[in-house]
Amino acid sequence: MAPIRLAIVGLGKIARDQHLGAIEATDGIELVAVASRHARLDGVACFHEIGDLLDSDVEIDAVSLCTPPQGRFSQAKAALDAGKHVMLEKPPGATLSEVYALEALARRKGLTLFSTWHSRAAAAVEPARALLAKRKIRSVAVEWKEDVRHWHPGQAWIWEPGGLGVFDPGINALSIVTRILPEEFHLTRSELTFPANRAAPIAASLVFETDGGVPVSAEFDWRQTGPQTWDIRVETDEGSVVLTHGGSRLFVNGESVIVEEDKEYRNLYRDFVALVMKGAIDTDFSPLVHVADAFMLGRRIQTAAFED
Amino acid sequence: MAPIRLAIVGLGKIARDQHLGAIEATDGIELVAVASRHARLDGVACFHEIGDLLDSDVEIDAVSLCTPPQGRFSQAKAALDAGKHVMLEKPPGATLSEVYALEALARRKGLTLFSTWHSRAAAAVEPARALLAKRKIRSVAVEWKEDVRHWHPGQAWIWEPGGLGVFDPGINALSIVTRILPEEFHLTRSELTFPANRAAPIAASLVFETDGGVPVSAEFDWRQTGPQTWDIRVETDEGSVVLTHGGSRLFVNGESVIVEEDKEYRNLYRDFVALVMKGAIDTDFSPLVHVADAFMLGRRIQTAAFED
Repeated sequence: MAPIRLAIVGLGKIARDQHLGAIEATDGIELVAVASRHARLDGVACFHEIGDLLDSDVEIDAVSLCTPPQGRFSQAKAALDAGKHVMLEKPPGATLSEVYALEALARRKGLTLFSTWHSRAAAAVEPARALLAKRKIRSVAVEWKEDVRHWHPGQAWIWEPGGLGVFDPGINALSIVTRILPEEFHLTRSELTFPANRAAPIAASLVFETDGGVPVSAEFDWRQTGPQTWDIRVETDEGSVVLTHGGSRLFVNGESVIVEEDKEYRNLYRDFVALVMKGAIDTDFSPLVHVADAFMLGRRIQTAAFED
Repeated sequence: MAPIRLAIVGLGKIARDQHLGAIEATDGIELVAVASRHARLDGVACFHEIGDLLDSDVEIDAVSLCTPPQGRFSQAKAALDAGKHVMLEKPPGATLSEVYALEALARRKGLTLFSTWHSRAAAAVEPARALLAKRKIRSVAVEWKEDVRHWHPGQAWIWEPGGLGVFDPGINALSIVTRILPEEFHLTRSELTFPANRAAPIAASLVFETDGGVPVSAEFDWRQTGPQTWDIRVETDEGSVVLTHGGSRLFVNGESVIVEEDKEYRNLYRDFVALVMKGAIDTDFSPLVHVADAFMLGRRIQTAAFED
């Protein structure tokens, strides 16, 4: 079968840091075009807007959207309307209503829509899920603390409504927890800390419980300098199950079980190729549902202005 | 068939103003018990908590939850776990995750779960829906402005996280719009005005568009004294379709077509009886999805402190 002819829309930091290399390393898919307002890429057809690309005679089968979530709906809709499969960076959109609409549209058109969660593709996630399915869980504690200045230098959109602030990394943790726990959970308390000069939170303190009553806590903070923390600690009746380094390392009862280099985006593109081959959809929006809940139920705390 | 034996949980303002009379006026259902922390009702079994009621030898088939949305999940779950049908006041819960979980639980147990939207039961809603299905819609403008001091005197919960503030009435408008428009819509801009001393907004200015690109605007405000406004104006290719008075009056091209007294809650209990008879579920959470989106995408504006 001929490889999937892919276009990337949005050639920013995440596309260059992760997508280009992962596409290159994945069988069954090849990059043939880019749509970017400011950037160009040698060796492929370049356009300013997805509309120009779709109107052109460059033939593509699929698009991968790497633009910020605000405004992504119209790009995804244009691609689906034109009969193209769509892969969405996380978060899949700026609102739940729009991502539900995209899912319905993809189903009507018989196209693949893949709402990706790159942290779910980390090495320790599926082993942790298998392990936890066999244990009785007592508590879950998430600590996701990083330095926004290091990871999101000058990304103004992330502080705007729809950019989600500290939930941009925090949703990665939620994408892992929603995958590894055998039960659903829901929020019971949310405190959101906003810099005085920003529309999005810089920290969040969340309390959930599973439908069966197990406590789940999450602390997200963007003000951590020095060592960074992306840990999920699950206490069970047979000891602890701990994911660190964003899900790439697994410790069971204190013992290191998995240490793997990052292959998240290669796994995502491998999965996208498989979904397109099968004509399937993969749209679990539950991490974004939890984020929307955190805003709706959130108590606001104001803190000092933040400058990049 | 014997009437459904119903318990009301939460005997506050909405239960007394609306539910008791509507149950009395509806065939096929009778009130046999009440659970309320502070209030009692003559002629029926009274309990402090739903747990006491479910543990007692008072036999019930269904519960109607009239408590504030925060904390309603555990009540609804207890009722469903005990095999009782459940009717939820609006909003159906404090988070989306919890109402999705309740829906899944009701399906697993084969019980009726009815997420009510009383404004959808207003007289003009179904006629407007039928009319709009045949017209081309150009724009929709919602104006929902009322005096919180008159309608929610001393209701502290409504200003707390999960109480939704001005979205408590605003969600009524959204429940009508999601019903009468033939297309889905999604939020593109949200401005939320918070009193300096409150955790919930006192006003909201929202811009949506339908999946087909029709503009939908909504202005919610709780600071309106004098005449109150609960209007939805739809401009179409064949003139205007206007619902006023919360959906009880309909004007088509300026001409009054429907004027009806309020029967919303009688319609809801009639529908609940029918759902229980059929063993069916009615859970359209889309109005709450739009509210969650409005918080997630909301830009905050601070205004003067509000005192009751």
